[in-house]
Amino acid sequence: MKKLLTLSISLALVVAAFAADTAEVPYPTNYRSWTHVKSMVIQPGHALHASFGGIHHLYANDLALQGYRAGSFPDGAVIVFDLLEAPARDHAITEGPRKVVGVMHRDATRFAATGGWGFEGFAGDSRTQRAVGANAAAACFACHQSHRGRDYVFSSYRP
Amino acid sequence: MKKLLTLSISLALVVAAFAADTAEVPYPTNYRSWTHVKSMVIQPGHALHASFGGIHHLYANDLALQGYRAGSFPDGAVIVFDLLEAPARDHAITEGPRKVVGVMHRDATRFAATGGWGFEGFAGDSRTQRAVGANAAAACFACHQSHRGRDYVFSSYRP
Repeated sequence: MKKLLTLSISLALVVAAFAADTAEVPYPTNYRSWTHVKSMVIQPGHALHASFGGIHHLYANDLALQGYRAGSFPDGAVIVFDLLEAPARDHAITEGPRKVVGVMHRDATRFAATGGWGFEGFAGDSRTQRAVGANAAAACFACHQSHRGRDYVFSSYRP
Repeated sequence: MKKLLTLSISLALVVAAFAADTAEVPYPTNYRSWTHVKSMVIQPGHALHASFGGIHHLYANDLALQGYRAGSFPDGAVIVFDLLEAPARDHAITEGPRKVVGVMHRDATRFAATGGWGFEGFAGDSRTQRAVGANAAAACFACHQSHRGRDYVFSSYRP
């Protein structure tokens, strides 16, 4: 009986760990060495300026690169949206401090509710401060679902 | 005597091939998969707009990355300056067609006359149309030599 109880508790812990895991997109360690996909500057007056004002760069890991080429993304594909301040001075726009590291992490099972993608944002240079958390459906997928035909991805790889 | 003549001709050919080689910076094949160093937008009104107007991205091969970290660059280090048109519309700046692929190629021996760096520009998407050629000293090194203390490199790696 004691053995059965121990087993039940162990199983419960495993299930709890797995449930917690399904909700979390990991920080994309080393993404700065991934392939640069494309960039864009969003300026004051743009409809998305409040959320995405600044200069952003998209980076793709190897599986995400395959996805850009194929038009659909395999599990394990990760796309990073690296958003920086973009101060304009003397007819030049440079890169300022990081605002957020946005992440799309492909796992068709764990993130089935949001098109097979987990969405997260890491504030500034933090690897732990989550800006999206449980709000992915409203904060991210609400817009991305308009791109269902492109596997929910807005960007295209610039050769 | 015939043998000596053959040897002389062979040597002459080798020397000629080497001399031609010293003048040419190779096209940086596969640079789009290298590490993205940083980016900047140069707008109308900027002093460098005629040459460098648009959005540019810097890419570094592994040896150049070591150089950014160390402050001096080993032979074989290559830095690419990828310049694209940057059309501005509806409060956003996007990436347009490629204007030029600028290259700094480190070889302290072959390019001793220009700080140990070979400079070249490949026009648009061409891998063969050279925009700098024999004018590297005037067209490139004249400005870069102001950064002798940084091994003639203007950019810094953005973490």
